[in-house]
Amino acid sequence: MSWIAERDWPSLEQGLAGRLRRDCGTDWERFIHHPFVRGMADGTLPEADFQRFLIQDYLYLIQYARAYALAIYKADTMEDMRSASGIVSGLLDTELALHIAYCAGWGLCVDDLHNQPESLELLAYTRFILDRGQTGDLLDLIVTLAPCLIGYGEIGARLMADPTTRREGNPYWEWIALYGGEKFVGLVDAGLRTLEALAGRYGAEGRYPALLAEFRTAVKLEAAFWNAGRSGML
Amino acid sequence: MSWIAERDWPSLEQGLAGRLRRDCGTDWERFIHHPFVRGMADGTLPEADFQRFLIQDYLYLIQYARAYALAIYKADTMEDMRSASGIVSGLLDTELALHIAYCAGWGLCVDDLHNQPESLELLAYTRFILDRGQTGDLLDLIVTLAPCLIGYGEIGARLMADPTTRREGNPYWEWIALYGGEKFVGLVDAGLRTLEALAGRYGAEGRYPALLAEFRTAVKLEAAFWNAGRSGML
Amino acid sequence: MSWIAERDWPSLEQGLAGRLRRDCGTDWERFIHHPFVRGMADGTLPEADFQRFLIQDYLYLIQYARAYALAIYKADTMEDMRSASGIVSGLLDTELALHIAYCAGWGLCVDDLHNQPESLELLAYTRFILDRGQTGDLLDLIVTLAPCLIGYGEIGARLMADPTTRREGNPYWEWIALYGGEKFVGLVDAGLRTLEALAGRYGAEGRYPALLAEFRTAVKLEAAFWNAGRSGML
Amino acid sequence: MSWIAERDWPSLEQGLAGRLRRDCGTDWERFIHHPFVRGMADGTLPEADFQRFLIQDYLYLIQYARAYALAIYKADTMEDMRSASGIVSGLLDTELALHIAYCAGWGLCVDDLHNQPESLELLAYTRFILDRGQTGDLLDLIVTLAPCLIGYGEIGARLMADPTTRREGNPYWEWIALYGGEKFVGLVDAGLRTLEALAGRYGAEGRYPALLAEFRTAVKLEAAFWNAGRSGML
Repeated sequence: MSWIAERDWPSLEQGLAGRLRRDCGTDWERFIHHPFVRGMADGTLPEADFQRFLIQDYLYLIQYARAYALAIYKADTMEDMRSASGIVSGLLDTELALHIAYCAGWGLCVDDLHNQPESLELLAYTRFILDRGQTGDLLDLIVTLAPCLIGYGEIGARLMADPTTRREGNPYWEWIALYGGEKFVGLVDAGLRTLEALAGRYGAEGRYPALLAEFRTAVKLEAAFWNAGRSGML
Repeated sequence: MSWIAERDWPSLEQGLAGRLRRDCGTDWERFIHHPFVRGMADGTLPEADFQRFLIQDYLYLIQYARAYALAIYKADTMEDMRSASGIVSGLLDTELALHIAYCAGWGLCVDDLHNQPESLELLAYTRFILDRGQTGDLLDLIVTLAPCLIGYGEIGARLMADPTTRREGNPYWEWIALYGGEKFVGLVDAGLRTLEALAGRYGAEGRYPALLAEFRTAVKLEAAFWNAGRSGML
Repeated sequence: MSWIAERDWPSLEQGLAGRLRRDCGTDWERFIHHPFVRGMADGTLPEADFQRFLIQDYLYLIQYARAYALAIYKADTMEDMRSASGIVSGLLDTELALHIAYCAGWGLCVDDLHNQPESLELLAYTRFILDRGQTGDLLDLIVTLAPCLIGYGEIGARLMADPTTRREGNPYWEWIALYGGEKFVGLVDAGLRTLEALAGRYGAEGRYPALLAEFRTAVKLEAAFWNAGRSGML
Repeated sequence: MSWIAERDWPSLEQGLAGRLRRDCGTDWERFIHHPFVRGMADGTLPEADFQRFLIQDYLYLIQYARAYALAIYKADTMEDMRSASGIVSGLLDTELALHIAYCAGWGLCVDDLHNQPESLELLAYTRFILDRGQTGDLLDLIVTLAPCLIGYGEIGARLMADPTTRREGNPYWEWIALYGGEKFVGLVDAGLRTLEALAGRYGAEGRYPALLAEFRTAVKLEAAFWNAGRSGML
């Protein structure tokens, strides 16, 4: 498959993020071309699988907010503190509510979201991020958080650009259009700029193997997360 | 001195906060009746001392924001996460700018604030808070943060209520009116309600001696902070 | 099945640990009576399953040492610091080497242990422990670490006491004798005493629901860990 | 003053440690040539000052053990975990007892050590180390811990090598001989090798300004620590 978006989105190929993404090779491919993603592209993904995913994704966002709270604490500049704080308050004040509204359209109420236990995949992924964040510095934390942001952006852009993606009557088109849309592309580009600035200040070049190792584990955990809770809850 | 405000502000006397404040006895008294406070009350505090204090207070607020970022990370409920996040974004988006504007009125520019090193008193106080926060749980963190909030509220209310406080021509009246005003009283009362709710859920009763120990150390560090940087910077 | 050991080991039934274990009900039962455990008891567990488990168990011990290092940092008394430090140095200086020697008897060399990636089950369990440890206080950390210690002790004691456990020609008898032996029982009893002392000082009674929630999640993650890596590595 | 030891101890001048020490310039000089140090060299330091220092130094070692416990948690290799664990157990099992015995020779009993409150200087220094350790990665933590190890070694070696240092009848000669002796030189050299290995793996070159900033603050706090508690306890 030739990827039109790749030509149009050079920032994905550049800098630290581009190098990490490239060096993950097939692990990255398995994440962004996962059967779950293909099932959304052609609309064949079973609704129950998507509902299960939406619930775990909601619980993921809560841990994601905790990770960015840690980023505020770890930041050494006012600019980095404000950037992370904006993400935390955006999640807690706006995005979680939007997610709840979106889930309502799929027949899930707030109680469905809050009463579900965290799946093995969710625990593994989010607590790995938080542990890397506590163990390492701000760069380790942001690198470990990057696959989610970059990957969803790339998936959205690819599916939008791919002429074989089903648009008419595809219940997942709204999801695709969200992550492939201008607004999310802007968020990804802002995240890439932040990452690149940190890469410079925190000496990414001289510690690349460790950064790649944690990025790669996060990529594998993202791939596993598409099936979060599929083999039953804990 | 009879304290009119004490009659009017019963929440300061109640619950965990009231007990901690009472049990600190003379340590609490030394903090809120510090010569620096009396110098503001009668307007005799040297301007240079106040400027020095304002600079360290600005640097304190940055660490205070880091402490509340840790509180977001440590919170177990959405409500506690949102409450702490509101404090962090309030500080970073609004209050630091207000502090800068206030300092400008005292002849201090932004560079004066950012280029000063942290004093010994500041390092001791803020890093003690952050270490207790990392070592303990959310209740330990909020208890260690409490002397600042409660104490400034009590000082403001006392000075406002005290007929001997000089109002006319007192350059510190604006500061007194800020911390003794309705808005700050509201913040203190909100903080007291949060603390009391945490005290219940986190079992304050059964671990009171450890809570008192960390509260008392924070109170002593608050008292020392009035003179932050007085004996020279590091 | 009547459990002889239960009559002989009253400390398992007492105090905070006894209450937590009881209140976990069927979650606890699923952990200690897991098919993997029954397969060791009658010697029918496939060797490949045990080898897979041994590798993940080795990687688990490394994270377990990190968790007790966090306990040293979080301890408020010299006695608690020394107790946790003894566990860390015991693991790093002795027990990991013993585990390697034991694995060698099962045909696994050191490289087999170090070159395996961490499984989803391992990441979920160990990083959950570390996150609870960073988020909460020393009691939260020790409570979350408790299911492993208590559970392996109870499993060993039960299997030793159970007349239907196969001894002759059972390749897993050595494992059973290790965890059911005097020395490990002593470790469990020491751990129970430490937990009970912390329960008193850290006010367990007043915060029991939160302690039970993290204990229960750890118990579920222990149950899942028997199959660590079974459905493929990450 | 020409420094004989400098000619004999080239490792102090090399690598990351040598660069940090050099770039601290007069801040480093103020630490190692502090009046307190000169008072030990010629034996004129008042005994009460030394007793005060010994008490705070004991309390410092407890926090130093916590910092190395954090280093175990933060280490990414077994070798780094074992190295930090050896320091922690050495402190808790041996060195604190040696310190108590040494203090007994100065008329201080264990209760004198444990009942003293932490001074402002101690709180500032140790909690700054712990906060940098939690905020940054293992390299940040070890760099912030380095001034203590390197500085005491350099001070001991200088005073031993300096012909003007009083040996006969100097009550502080035992202290000088301890830190200037072969054994402590060996500890410093081992610490320098560890730091240099971390500098390579964690990319010190590319993040040098931040490392220098935290090293310099620790150096200033070391200098302030000679007078720990002098201006009264908290």
